[in-house]
Amino acid sequence: MLTRIDHIGIACFDLDRTVEFYRATYGFEVYHSEVNEEQGVREAMLRINGTSDGGASYLQLLEPTREDSAVGKWLAKNGEGVHHIAFGTADVDQDAADIRGKGVRVLYDEPRTGSMGSRITFLHPKDCHGVLTELVTSRTDH
Amino acid sequence: MLTRIDHIGIACFDLDRTVEFYRATYGFEVYHSEVNEEQGVREAMLRINGTSDGGASYLQLLEPTREDSAVGKWLAKNGEGVHHIAFGTADVDQDAADIRGKGVRVLYDEPRTGSMGSRITFLHPKDCHGVLTELVTSRTDH
Repeated sequence: MLTRIDHIGIACFDLDRTVEFYRATYGFEVYHSEVNEEQGVREAMLRINGTSDGGASYLQLLEPTREDSAVGKWLAKNGEGVHHIAFGTADVDQDAADIRGKGVRVLYDEPRTGSMGSRITFLHPKDCHGVLTELVTSRTDH
Repeated sequence: MLTRIDHIGIACFDLDRTVEFYRATYGFEVYHSEVNEEQGVREAMLRINGTSDGGASYLQLLEPTREDSAVGKWLAKNGEGVHHIAFGTADVDQDAADIRGKGVRVLYDEPRTGSMGSRITFLHPKDCHGVLTELVTSRTDH
């Protein structure tokens, strides 16, 4: 069951400049940063609020590490902006299976590693009214 | 001070079909629906989770009521997808003034009426790394 907005994924050309925009404009600070080579992104997580399921909601700022990554191709086509949204669940495997059973295309056969050691998968945006949708089970979900 | 992700605004061609997609796929239910003639949208709010500031995070599904509305023009250009993101604050007037003072264009001189009796304004996406960004003070913010 999806119990929170886990994050909003925002693609940018220059992670450092974008982090500085969010800090200077709103006071949001970097909670965590990492490079995910599998996804081809360098990213910063800005924690915005806690959520009623015991988790939290973040902005995830994403800069591609290579032009042929999914985010790199998306940026070249669309420019900077909201790349995906993510819902948190205690059991990404079960939710992905349930949703696949409803005819929505799930992009990975098995969840992969996301931010902060989470397990993630994506749903095809064409099956989701144009919204690239991620499902996340964070390390702290139970 | 911005204290939560208040909502993600998603533009769609057919509100009823999109509401049904979110219900059938994820179990999300409509918390509130209304027509905002000033904004030129018919909308449904799906409440996803409570937030640590005493508010909540929603998906806001938006169908234009006229082609020449902001959302109507955006849909004609981009197709369905994430239209904007919104941060919640107890004082939209103060935050809008502070952010304007930092050189970010605020689209309204004074906040207007948003979902569920909230007061809202928008920041220019070209000043926000491509993200149309809304500031919201809900009726229940204090």
